[in-house]
Amino acid sequence: MLEVIPTIVGILGILVVALIYYLVVREDPGTPEMVAIASYIQEGANAYLKRQFYTIFIFIAIIAAILGILEGLIPAISFLAGSILSLIAAYIGMNAAVKANVRTTNAARTSPAKALKIAFWGGSVMGLSVVSLSVLGIGSLYLIVRALYPIESPQQLEMALHTIVPFGMGASLAALFAQLGGGIYTKAADIAADLVGKVEAGIPEDDPRNPAVIADQVGDNVGDCAGRGADLFESFSDNIIGMMILGVAFYTLYGLKGVLFPLMAESAGVISTIIAIFLIREKTKNPITAINVSLFVSGVLNAIFFYYLAVELLGDYHIFLAAILGLIASLVVGVTVQYYTGTGYRPVKYIAESSQFGPALDVIAGLAVGLESAFVPLIVIAAVVSFAYIVAGLYGIAAATAGILSTTGIIMAADTFGPISDNAAGIAEMAGLSKEVREGLDLLDAVGNTTKAITKGYAMACAILSAFVLFSAYLSAAKLTDVTMPRVDLADPFILVGLILGSTLAYLFSALAIRAVGKTANKMVEEVRRQFREIPGLLEGKAKPDYARAVDISTKHALKEMVLPTLITFFAPIIIGLLFHRKPLGAFIVGATVAGGLLAVFMINAGGALDNAKKLIESGLYGGKGSEAHKSAVVGDTVGDPLKDTAGPSLHIFVKLVTIVALTFVAFFPP
Amino acid sequence: MLEVIPTIVGILGILVVALIYYLVVREDPGTPEMVAIASYIQEGANAYLKRQFYTIFIFIAIIAAILGILEGLIPAISFLAGSILSLIAAYIGMNAAVKANVRTTNAARTSPAKALKIAFWGGSVMGLSVVSLSVLGIGSLYLIVRALYPIESPQQLEMALHTIVPFGMGASLAALFAQLGGGIYTKAADIAADLVGKVEAGIPEDDPRNPAVIADQVGDNVGDCAGRGADLFESFSDNIIGMMILGVAFYTLYGLKGVLFPLMAESAGVISTIIAIFLIREKTKNPITAINVSLFVSGVLNAIFFYYLAVELLGDYHIFLAAILGLIASLVVGVTVQYYTGTGYRPVKYIAESSQFGPALDVIAGLAVGLESAFVPLIVIAAVVSFAYIVAGLYGIAAATAGILSTTGIIMAADTFGPISDNAAGIAEMAGLSKEVREGLDLLDAVGNTTKAITKGYAMACAILSAFVLFSAYLSAAKLTDVTMPRVDLADPFILVGLILGSTLAYLFSALAIRAVGKTANKMVEEVRRQFREIPGLLEGKAKPDYARAVDISTKHALKEMVLPTLITFFAPIIIGLLFHRKPLGAFIVGATVAGGLLAVFMINAGGALDNAKKLIESGLYGGKGSEAHKSAVVGDTVGDPLKDTAGPSLHIFVKLVTIVALTFVAFFPP
Repeated sequence: MLEVIPTIVGILGILVVALIYYLVVREDPGTPEMVAIASYIQEGANAYLKRQFYTIFIFIAIIAAILGILEGLIPAISFLAGSILSLIAAYIGMNAAVKANVRTTNAARTSPAKALKIAFWGGSVMGLSVVSLSVLGIGSLYLIVRALYPIESPQQLEMALHTIVPFGMGASLAALFAQLGGGIYTKAADIAADLVGKVEAGIPEDDPRNPAVIADQVGDNVGDCAGRGADLFESFSDNIIGMMILGVAFYTLYGLKGVLFPLMAESAGVISTIIAIFLIREKTKNPITAINVSLFVSGVLNAIFFYYLAVELLGDYHIFLAAILGLIASLVVGVTVQYYTGTGYRPVKYIAESSQFGPALDVIAGLAVGLESAFVPLIVIAAVVSFAYIVAGLYGIAAATAGILSTTGIIMAADTFGPISDNAAGIAEMAGLSKEVREGLDLLDAVGNTTKAITKGYAMACAILSAFVLFSAYLSAAKLTDVTMPRVDLADPFILVGLILGSTLAYLFSALAIRAVGKTANKMVEEVRRQFREIPGLLEGKAKPDYARAVDISTKHALKEMVLPTLITFFAPIIIGLLFHRKPLGAFIVGATVAGGLLAVFMINAGGALDNAKKLIESGLYGGKGSEAHKSAVVGDTVGDPLKDTAGPSLHIFVKLVTIVALTFVAFFPP
Repeated sequence: MLEVIPTIVGILGILVVALIYYLVVREDPGTPEMVAIASYIQEGANAYLKRQFYTIFIFIAIIAAILGILEGLIPAISFLAGSILSLIAAYIGMNAAVKANVRTTNAARTSPAKALKIAFWGGSVMGLSVVSLSVLGIGSLYLIVRALYPIESPQQLEMALHTIVPFGMGASLAALFAQLGGGIYTKAADIAADLVGKVEAGIPEDDPRNPAVIADQVGDNVGDCAGRGADLFESFSDNIIGMMILGVAFYTLYGLKGVLFPLMAESAGVISTIIAIFLIREKTKNPITAINVSLFVSGVLNAIFFYYLAVELLGDYHIFLAAILGLIASLVVGVTVQYYTGTGYRPVKYIAESSQFGPALDVIAGLAVGLESAFVPLIVIAAVVSFAYIVAGLYGIAAATAGILSTTGIIMAADTFGPISDNAAGIAEMAGLSKEVREGLDLLDAVGNTTKAITKGYAMACAILSAFVLFSAYLSAAKLTDVTMPRVDLADPFILVGLILGSTLAYLFSALAIRAVGKTANKMVEEVRRQFREIPGLLEGKAKPDYARAVDISTKHALKEMVLPTLITFFAPIIIGLLFHRKPLGAFIVGATVAGGLLAVFMINAGGALDNAKKLIESGLYGGKGSEAHKSAVVGDTVGDPLKDTAGPSLHIFVKLVTIVALTFVAFFPP
C-alpha cells in the first residue's frame, strides 16, 4: 500500500500547482501598456522554449530508440518520461513566471505585500511542479516495474530497478540542454544590453530604447527559471534513483523498504512544500522574513518527516542523524556563499576596493575570491561525507543528500521569486511607472538576490553530494562492492588515467560553455550597436528598436551552441567505459565530479562576488555610478556573467549526467 | 666505480659554468649610462634576493632542526643541501643574467649574432648550474649514504635512500618560496608599470620616466630567472630521488642499478647540455634556428645516452622506449602550448577579435581558451602514463619523466635567454640607443617569447609527470604495493575525502597567490600614481622618479605574501597524514596533483594567449595600438599576468612539495 503514496502525493502536488496557477492568473495584469510589454517577454520566451524543445526532442528521440533496442521498452519509456517531465516542469514553471511578473508589477501599484505574495506564488508553481512531477514520474514507474518484473531476490530487484535509471538520464540530458541553452541566451543578451546600452550609450538599465532589453528579460525566464527548474528536477530525480539503487546493496539490512525510503522521504518533501507555500500571505510585512519563515518551516517539517520515516519505516534512527547532517551542511554552504558574495563582507569589499585600480585588478580580485571560496564548502561536504558514513555507512551519505533535497520545492520557489521580481521591476521601468512603485519592486528584487545566493549554495551542495550518491550506485551496479579487493584504486596507473581524463573533461566543458556565451554576446553586441547606428531617432526615443531581431539572434546562437558540450558529456563516459572498462570509468566519474564541482563553486562565487562589488560601488562607494571604479566593476561583472550563470550551473548538471550515463550503460562495459 | 660519475660530472658542470660566466663578464658592458642602468637593475635584484634568502633561511633552519630531531643528522643535512643548492643555482643563474643583459645590449650595437650568443650563454649559466648542482648534490649524498649505511637488502637500501628524500623537500620548499616571491614581485611591478605608465600616462614601455620601470626589470630577473631556476632545480632533483626510491621496488629486476640509473641518466643530461651550449656560436644567422639546433642536438644526444644506459646498465631496452615516449610527449605538449598561445592560430585570433567588443569579452575569450587548452596536454600525459606503464611498468613511467627531464639544462638556458633579451631591450630603450639596435633586440625578445612558450609546455609536462613519479615513490615508501589489496581506493569514502581535500587545497593556494599579486599591485599602482602626481616635472622628463621606493614596495610585499601559501602547502599533507593516515593521504596527493596541474595549464595558457592577443593587435589588427580593441586587450593581458607568471608556475612546485613532504614524513603516519 505504501508504494502508492508517492504517485498520490505527486498528483496532489499537480492539483495544487493548478490551483496556485489559477490564483496567479486571476490577478489583474494592469494597464494595456504593461500587458503589451509582458506579452513581448512571454512571446519571446515561449518561442525560444518551443524551438529549444524541438531541438532537444530530436536527440531524445534518437537516444530513446537506441535505448529501446539495447535495453528494451521500459528503459526507453523511462528515459522519455524523465526528459519530457523535466521539460514540462520547466515549461509550466516558466509560464507561471511570465504571468506572475506583470501581475507583481501591477500589485505593487497598490500593495507591496500583495506583490510579494504574487511573486512568491509564481515561483511556487515552478518549485512545486519540479518536485511533484519527479515524485509522480518515479513513483508511477516504480509501480509499473513492480507489476511487470519479479522482485523476490536482491538480484531481481536490482534488474527491475535498473529499468528506472534512464528516467534520471533523461532528466539530466534535458536539464543540461535547457540550462546550457538558457544560460547562453540569458548571458549573451544581458552582456549586450549592459555593454552597449548602459556603458556605450549611457542609458539606464531596462530602458525601452535598448534593442536588447526584451531579449534580456526573456533570458531571465528561459535561463534562470526554465534552466534552473530543469536543473533541480534532475538533482531531485537522480538522487531518488541513486538512493534506490543503493538500497539494493542494503537489502539484508532494510529489505524493500530501503528502496522505498527515498521515494517516501521526497514525497514528504512535496507535502512540506505545499504547507510552506501557503504560509506566505498578504499580512506579512517584511519580504525577507516571510521567505525565511517559509524556508524554516519547510526544513522543520522535513526533519520531523525524516525522523518518522527513519524510525518507523527503516527502524534506524541513524538515517535521521545523517539527514540532519545534510540539512546543516546546506545551511553552512549557504552562509559561506553569502560571506563570499555578499556586499557586507571582506571579499566583495576587497574587489570593490581593487576596482579603483582599473578593470584588470577588479577581475583579478574576483578570480582570487572565487578560487578561495571553494575551500569551506568542500571542507563541509568532505565532513558530511565522513560523518554520514561513520553514522550510517554509504546509505547514510545518500540519506544526508536526501535530507538536503527534501527542501527542493520551497528553495526552488524562493529562487524563481528572483527572476519574477527582476522582471517585474523591468516592466515597471519600461512602462514608466511611478518612482514609489519602482522602489517597492527594487526592494523585492534585492530580496530576490539574497534568496538567489542561498539557493546557489544549496544547488552546489546538492549537485556534488548527489553525484557521490550516483557514484555509489554506479559501484553497486558495476559489482565493485567487495571491500577486500581493489575497486577504483588510484595506485593503478589506468585508474589514475581515468581520473585525469574525467577532470580534464570538466575543463573542456567549461571552456565550451564560456566560449558559447562569448561568441553569442559578440553577435549581440554587433547587432545592438548596429541598431543604435542605423535606426534614426532611436536614442532620442522617437523610434522603436527592433526587439524581435535581437531575440532571434540570441535564440539561434544559444540553440546552436548548446549541442556540442551536451553531446560530448553524454558520449565521453560511454567511450571511456568501452575503452578502459568499469574501474577506470569509476575514476573518470570521480574526476569529473571533483573537478566539475570545484570549477562550479569557483565560477559561481567569482561571478556573484564581482556582481555585488559592482552593486556596492553603485550604492555610492569610491565615487558611485559613473566613476572610474564603477566602470571597472562593470567589466568585472560582465566577466563573471558567463561564469556564474552559464558554465557554473551547467557544471552541476554535467557531473551528474556523466555519472548517470555510466550507470545506465554499465552492463555494456567489460568489468 | 660507476657511482662516482654523477659527482664528477657535477663538478665538471660547475667548472664549465665558471668558464661561461667568465666569457660573459669579460665582454664590454657599454657606455657609462648603460652601465648605470644595469647597475640599478643588478642592485635591485641582488637586494631582493638577499632579503628573500634571509626570509627563507629562517623557515629552512627551523624545519632542518625539527628534521634533525625526528629523523637524524643525515636527513637534516640532506634537507639543507637541497634548499641551499637550489638557492645557489638560482643566485648564480640570476647573477649571470643581470651581467649578460647589458652586454647583450652593447653587443647588439655592433653584431646581432654576438648579442644572441651572449644572451644564450647568459642563460646557459642558469641552465647548467641547475642540472650540475642537482647531480652533484644528490650524487655526493648518495656516496655518503652508501658509506654510512649497510645496503645489503632492499629493506636496508630503502632506509638508506630515505635519508636523501629531504634533499628534494628542501629543493621544493626553497623553490616554492622563490617562485612565489619572485612571481608576486615581477607581476605587481609589471602591472603597475603598464597600467599607470602605458595606459594612464600614455608613455611607452620601459620609459625611464616611469617610476616602476626598474622594479619591472628587476622583476624579470627575480621572477622569471631566479624563480624558474629554483623551479626546474626541484623538478630535476625530485624526479631523480623519486625514481631512486622506486628503483628499490624493482630491486629483484634491476638490482642496485635501478637506483643508480636516474643519477646516471641525468649526468648524461649534463654532458649533452654542455655540448649543446657550445653549438651556439657567432656564425649563426637566424636566432631561432640556432636555438632549435641546440635543443635538437641535446635531445638526440640524450636519446643515445638513454639507449646505452638502458641496454648496458639495466639490460632492458623497454626503459629506452619509455624515455622516448617522454621526449615525444614534451614535444607534443610544447606544440599544443604554441597553438593555444601563438599569434598565428585560431585561439589567439579569437581573443583579439573579441577584444573589439570590450575588455570583458576579451577576458572571457581568454578564460575559455585557457580552460580548453588543458585538454590535449592532459590527454598526452594520460597516454604517456598508459603506454609507459604497458611498456615497462611503474619504472617505465619514471623513465618517461627522466627522458623529458634530461633536456632540462638546455631548456632552462633557452628559457633564461628570454628575460635576458627582454632586459637587454629595456636597457636599450632606457639608454636611448638607436632604432636599429632596439629593433635587433626586439627580434631577440620575440625569439625569447617563443622559447618561453616551449619551455612552459615542457615545465607543465615535467611537473605533472614528476608528481606521479613521486606518488609512486610514496606508495612504495608507504608500503602500499600489494596489488591484490585496496590501496588508494576511491570506493572508500575516506579516500574520496582525501581526494576532495587535496583538490581544494590547489584552489586555495591559487587564490592566495593571485590575491598576493593583486594586493601588491594595488600598492604599486598607488605609489606610481603618487609619484606622477607629486614629483613636479616628472612626465616632462625634467625630474627623475624615485625608482628605489617602487623597488622597496614590491620587495616588502612580495616577501610578506609568499609565506602563507608556502606554509599551508608544507603543513597540509602532514595534518592529513596524521588525521586520516596513509591511504587518504595518497588520494590527497593525487587530488592536489590533478587539480593543481589542470589549474596550472589553464592559468599559464590563458595568460599566454591574452598576452599574445594584445601583441597581435599591436601589430596593427583592429586598429592597432591605442585603439579601443587594444585597450581591451591590455586589460586582458593584465588579468592574465598573475595567472601565467605567479599562480601557474607556483602550482607546478606546489604539487611536488605536497608529495615530497608526504614522502619525507611517511613513517610518522599510521598505515
